[in-house]
Amino acid sequence: MTSIALIEAAAQRLAGPARRTPLLSSPFLDEIAGRRVLVKPECLQHTGSFKFRGGWSAVSALDPEVRARGVIAFSSGNHAQGVAAAAKGHGVPSVIIMPSDAPQLKIANTRALGAEVVLYDRANEDRDALGAKLAGERGLTLIKPFDEPQVIAGQGTTGLEIAEQAAEEGVSRADVLVCCGGGGLTSGIALALEAKAPGLRARPVEPEGFDDVARSLAAGLIQRNPRLSGSICDAIITPQPGDITFPIMQRLCGPGLAVSEEEALRAMALAFLRLKIVIEPGGAVALAAALFRPEAVEGDAVIAVASGGNVDAGMFCEALERFGG
Amino acid sequence: MTSIALIEAAAQRLAGPARRTPLLSSPFLDEIAGRRVLVKPECLQHTGSFKFRGGWSAVSALDPEVRARGVIAFSSGNHAQGVAAAAKGHGVPSVIIMPSDAPQLKIANTRALGAEVVLYDRANEDRDALGAKLAGERGLTLIKPFDEPQVIAGQGTTGLEIAEQAAEEGVSRADVLVCCGGGGLTSGIALALEAKAPGLRARPVEPEGFDDVARSLAAGLIQRNPRLSGSICDAIITPQPGDITFPIMQRLCGPGLAVSEEEALRAMALAFLRLKIVIEPGGAVALAAALFRPEAVEGDAVIAVASGGNVDAGMFCEALERFGG
Repeated sequence: MTSIALIEAAAQRLAGPARRTPLLSSPFLDEIAGRRVLVKPECLQHTGSFKFRGGWSAVSALDPEVRARGVIAFSSGNHAQGVAAAAKGHGVPSVIIMPSDAPQLKIANTRALGAEVVLYDRANEDRDALGAKLAGERGLTLIKPFDEPQVIAGQGTTGLEIAEQAAEEGVSRADVLVCCGGGGLTSGIALALEAKAPGLRARPVEPEGFDDVARSLAAGLIQRNPRLSGSICDAIITPQPGDITFPIMQRLCGPGLAVSEEEALRAMALAFLRLKIVIEPGGAVALAAALFRPEAVEGDAVIAVASGGNVDAGMFCEALERFGG
Repeated sequence: MTSIALIEAAAQRLAGPARRTPLLSSPFLDEIAGRRVLVKPECLQHTGSFKFRGGWSAVSALDPEVRARGVIAFSSGNHAQGVAAAAKGHGVPSVIIMPSDAPQLKIANTRALGAEVVLYDRANEDRDALGAKLAGERGLTLIKPFDEPQVIAGQGTTGLEIAEQAAEEGVSRADVLVCCGGGGLTSGIALALEAKAPGLRARPVEPEGFDDVARSLAAGLIQRNPRLSGSICDAIITPQPGDITFPIMQRLCGPGLAVSEEEALRAMALAFLRLKIVIEPGGAVALAAALFRPEAVEGDAVIAVASGGNVDAGMFCEALERFGG
């Protein structure tokens, strides 16, 4: 199980390879929210998202002989790049299984980070069977995207940094809003805050219509999303919270929040204008909740994790044209 | 005169108020440049540019009784916001004199940062006389944009951070490319590197057609720009290097570089795609030189300062549409 000891051990392995992202702020955002807003920009992490932390944590935790045979992951997005970069940093092979209709840029980026990309046909091929076959033949270790203790521990290092940086800013009581898919980042941060900054409370934020974690927390048992496509916040859409992440979130997190796609785009435009960072729609939902759901947040300050910035120019400019002033 | 002692004293006053910006990188940028590229993103500094450092340094260095009467600056851009935020942080008044045809957003931002904005008519009013009159009546202290020892000392704190962060990255010999207007940032960084990282060499980068500093360094005496308008890199266009900054640059800097406007826009698009930061055209020229002038740079690594990110959405999307593919 992931514990604070596992997170601190991951932080030691990540010191150097991972980037310590700063804590950003702007008086203009404070004014919109009606309280201090502190933003943790994980878009500035290697590969453009927090996923590098979990990927590096998991790859570095493997027994060297096992690791040398290589790793495998299923992902068309940020997890793919995080695992590929972590494997490359360790000098071991990685295989990333992606749908053949994934964007060319994501395929090219993952290859450029040193991964062997294996494409499959969503309609006619069984992804899991293909992965199991490759893993068996080559002795590859599967790195799951969130429901894996060492991945959660890596994401939790974000929470260790937030605890230290919030204390430097004089913030000891606040909601920490986290963009939430399967719950790896949210549960990791929640565990870190429990140990290091108990006055800070992690809360998951999701897109409206895909708020499986918020509903699961409210119901007290795991709920599924009715659909998995059709959101611009694709980076954080998962079927349901994880079997490992959910009990952690249930024990430690405050109620979940949900924002509209339009609010995510507005938050992207404000992050451009006021913080000079690039965030993707799925990485903007926590900042959107901090800015546009002030009545649902407690305390004089709020911390929002901007979890990733892998957005294409077209989508980004749509946000700026609609809301960028 | 500005010395390393003055820079270190400024760093003490800036610890807390200023943000320690990280050092960013991407293997994709390394591949374009043919060497390691490290980027110091001062766009993430308070007010969106390095100018906050110099403003804070100058305001905090004033005698408290003098400071209490307030400060005054001439600027329609980044220096205005830096001085306004520094004055507000000290709880003292600031007056910023801006042309009446300055963009509404910049006027509004400067006011929102707590400054009294005094507009003048470029065609019919004498800016300096207006400033002198206000300063005399109210006892305000003028904060010059670059040719002022405490301003240079504040900008030089960027160089202290670069020296430490480059050492952490194992880089001890490299060119440090700096977006250069009047030379406050370049000369401050050069002084810091001389003392703390003598293997790192500061070099000014300017837009083609506005390369007064490069020509002044080559000629051995101060040269002027033939014109002062018509560049999208407006943030770093000044008539000529400063009387204080030029001798420092002459003693310590390597040859200047110049890039085209198109190269600056391409660098902005690559910073969006690969680093997830927002930089303005004038803040992109150093990165452009690092990426597109590899033959003019020495060493296995290059450090580029991204000096500011105060760009409007229209210009930013033009860069992405043309080069953000």
